[in-house]
Amino acid sequence: MQLLDAGSTDEWAATFTEDGVFEVGDSAVHGSQDIARAARKVADEFAAAGVQRRHWIGMLTVTPGDDGELTARSYALVLEIPTGGEVVVRRSTVCTDRLVSSDGQWRVKHRRVTRDGLDPA
Amino acid sequence: MQLLDAGSTDEWAATFTEDGVFEVGDSAVHGSQDIARAARKVADEFAAAGVQRRHWIGMLTVTPGDDGELTARSYALVLEIPTGGEVVVRRSTVCTDRLVSSDGQWRVKHRRVTRDGLDPA
Amino acid sequence: MQLLDAGSTDEWAATFTEDGVFEVGDSAVHGSQDIARAARKVADEFAAAGVQRRHWIGMLTVTPGDDGELTARSYALVLEIPTGGEVVVRRSTVCTDRLVSSDGQWRVKHRRVTRDGLDPA
Repeated sequence: MQLLDAGSTDEWAATFTEDGVFEVGDSAVHGSQDIARAARKVADEFAAAGVQRRHWIGMLTVTPGDDGELTARSYALVLEIPTGGEVVVRRSTVCTDRLVSSDGQWRVKHRRVTRDGLDPA
Repeated sequence: MQLLDAGSTDEWAATFTEDGVFEVGDSAVHGSQDIARAARKVADEFAAAGVQRRHWIGMLTVTPGDDGELTARSYALVLEIPTGGEVVVRRSTVCTDRLVSSDGQWRVKHRRVTRDGLDPA
Repeated sequence: MQLLDAGSTDEWAATFTEDGVFEVGDSAVHGSQDIARAARKVADEFAAAGVQRRHWIGMLTVTPGDDGELTARSYALVLEIPTGGEVVVRRSTVCTDRLVSSDGQWRVKHRRVTRDGLDPA
């Protein structure tokens, strides 16, 4: 998420598998290329508005599956800080990742984000 | 705290010893059964009000005692997110736990929570 | 940072090397003695105002250098809680530390803090 906050959207999208899925609420983006494109668009909008985003991950639990995959569940908090302005705690979410290992690196095969107050848990 | 946030109050209370004490400010609940009951009541109130709570634990330090116990000190932040509403950072606290091990599991024998701005440190 | 939040400014400043540098935005304090002095002044002001500060460190990455030093990068969030008042998320920052080891202890040789919305990243 530090990569995303720094505007390095391609590097961030590369933490997904090529066929990775990124689900937020009831919409989903399929494939790391489309995930990169969507992230770029949002990053450009925040940059144009002069707003720094900060994603905080915490309260992590990791559960190994039978198939060599991992399920990682965390809370994620999204902060927004406009140039010259106050910190806004924009969003509290729960993030559930299914992670697979290839070439010695863990990548996100499926990420599901539920936004507190918006999405059904 | 994820259990508590999910409304699984019995499972959460089971992280205390049977004779565990939960102290907040100058009030205390004694015994995991009463802790469970009190947590259930609060959880039901938040559920009825349509408010999701999120407890964040951070800045953890763990100190072993001479007696095989551990003292765990952490900051804990309580967020509240009403359905359709904004994130509220409701409370900043310091949590001091005395943990004992039995049957290969650490449980809370004594938890003391001081609420910043309310309770003397 | 727990030491700083507790008002133990000398103990906190001792986590810097004697010639350590603490840079925030475009101002810098040189030497752990001056860092201690500056911290004491700020801590006294907050105490006089009845405001509890809480520094949260998260999203830590640690990178070893060729020279035996470590670079630690983290997000740091500063909360302020006035007596009887609400939690204020005062500041979101990125903290970059260069750490050196001596006498079996890691100390900060150089800390650079950039404040989101105020300082150029």
